[in-house]
Formats: sequence, C-alpha cells, structure tokens
Amino acid sequence: MEKINIQEKFALFTERWSPRIIARVGDVHVKLGRIQGAFEWHSHEDEDEMFLVIEGRMTLRFRDRDVELGPGECLVVPRGVEHMPVADEETKIMMIEPAGTVNTGGNVSERTVEARWV
Amino acid sequence: MEKINIQEKFALFTERWSPRIIARVGDVHVKLGRIQGAFEWHSHEDEDEMFLVIEGRMTLRFRDRDVELGPGECLVVPRGVEHMPVADEETKIMMIEPAGTVNTGGNVSERTVEARWV
Repeated sequence: MEKINIQEKFALFTERWSPRIIARVGDVHVKLGRIQGAFEWHSHEDEDEMFLVIEGRMTLRFRDRDVELGPGECLVVPRGVEHMPVADEETKIMMIEPAGTVNTGGNVSERTVEARWV
Repeated sequence: MEKINIQEKFALFTERWSPRIIARVGDVHVKLGRIQGAFEWHSHEDEDEMFLVIEGRMTLRFRDRDVELGPGECLVVPRGVEHMPVADEETKIMMIEPAGTVNTGGNVSERTVEARWV
C-alpha cells in the first residue's frame, strides 16, 4: 500500500509501445505507456480500454474517424472496436484495462509484448 | 465513444464528497471527486479503491499511518482496509473502483451518496 508517483514511474522505462503496470484495482490494471509513431490496427474482443493522456498528444484512429486527445483528456474504446493509437511526438499515457489485456489485441505480431510491472 | 475532458467534467459540479462517474471500463467506474475537510472512517469489504490526485493535496489516513498525495500521485486502498480521506484545501481527485462501490463503504451515514454520471 505504497504511494505511486506517476512521473517517477515513467522515469523507470524508455521503451515505447511497451505498457508498464503500476496498479491493480479489482480486475483491472492501471498501466503507463510511452508512445510515438503509429501502432497497428487491432481490437480487444472482451476488454474495454481507457486511454488518458498525461503529457503530449495522441490520435485514436477508428475505421470511421479520428479522435485527438491532449493532456487530461481520455476516451474508452469499447471491446470489439478496431483502433490504432498514433502520436507525432513522444506522448505519455495512462491506460485502464482488464488484467491480461494484450497490447495488440487479437493479433500476435512483433509488437506484441507482455505488460510488466514497473 | 466520446472524448472526455477531465477539467470540463469538474466544471459541471461543485459538491464535495459526491463522486461523479465519467467512464466505465469493464467492471470498474472511473470517478471524479472534489474533496475538502475530513471524510469519515470506512472500508469497502469487497472493493479496491484507487485515489489519484489531479489538483491539490490529500492525506489518506490509515489506522497506523498517514500517506500524503500530491498531483500525479496515487495509491490503491485494498478491500477491507479502513481509511479516511482528508484535504486541507479543495482538492480534485480521480477514483478507480468497481462499479457499485459506495462512498462510505460499509457505513450508511448522512454522507452516503449514490455516484451519478456527469
């Protein structure tokens, strides 16, 4: 039951597109991620996924539109909805999603990583 | 699937100790709260509860110690652990907790409120 400082946690890793778990609340994990560039199209069959921008800007691309998020803005991608996160500059985000959610959803690719605790 | 701006949501309510739901992710709710003064001792039998300070400072009092949280700091209170949130100045917080979590936990008091969406 220790205090977690988000920026101190970000300072512990530099890899992009490699989410780190900072907390578990019931069945969900709270994760931090550094992102830059374009990820890949994917969806999570059974998991909702919330993105919150801590620093920077990101675009969540959907098949029918794009949504841009700045600091303090968030969006929940419902299960089953295809999306592709994109960021021009390095952006720090928080994600809330069920424990076990895979970063590339139903795809297994060279970008698939297992989330580790930080 | 709309973007949520946290500060815009805070601008929609002024009541303290009356959490507002901004999102659902799987089985958890993401809530915003304005707090000032001391709440009451309580615990949640079955629910973990994460507190994240957005603006201001808060103290989470436990029976054996206090933990102070500033902006960008968070802590998960595990189910069953008695706690009392306190804030000297008005403080804006985000909470992540299972849907249905009652603000006063196992107590029903004049401070018990049902969380509404904002």
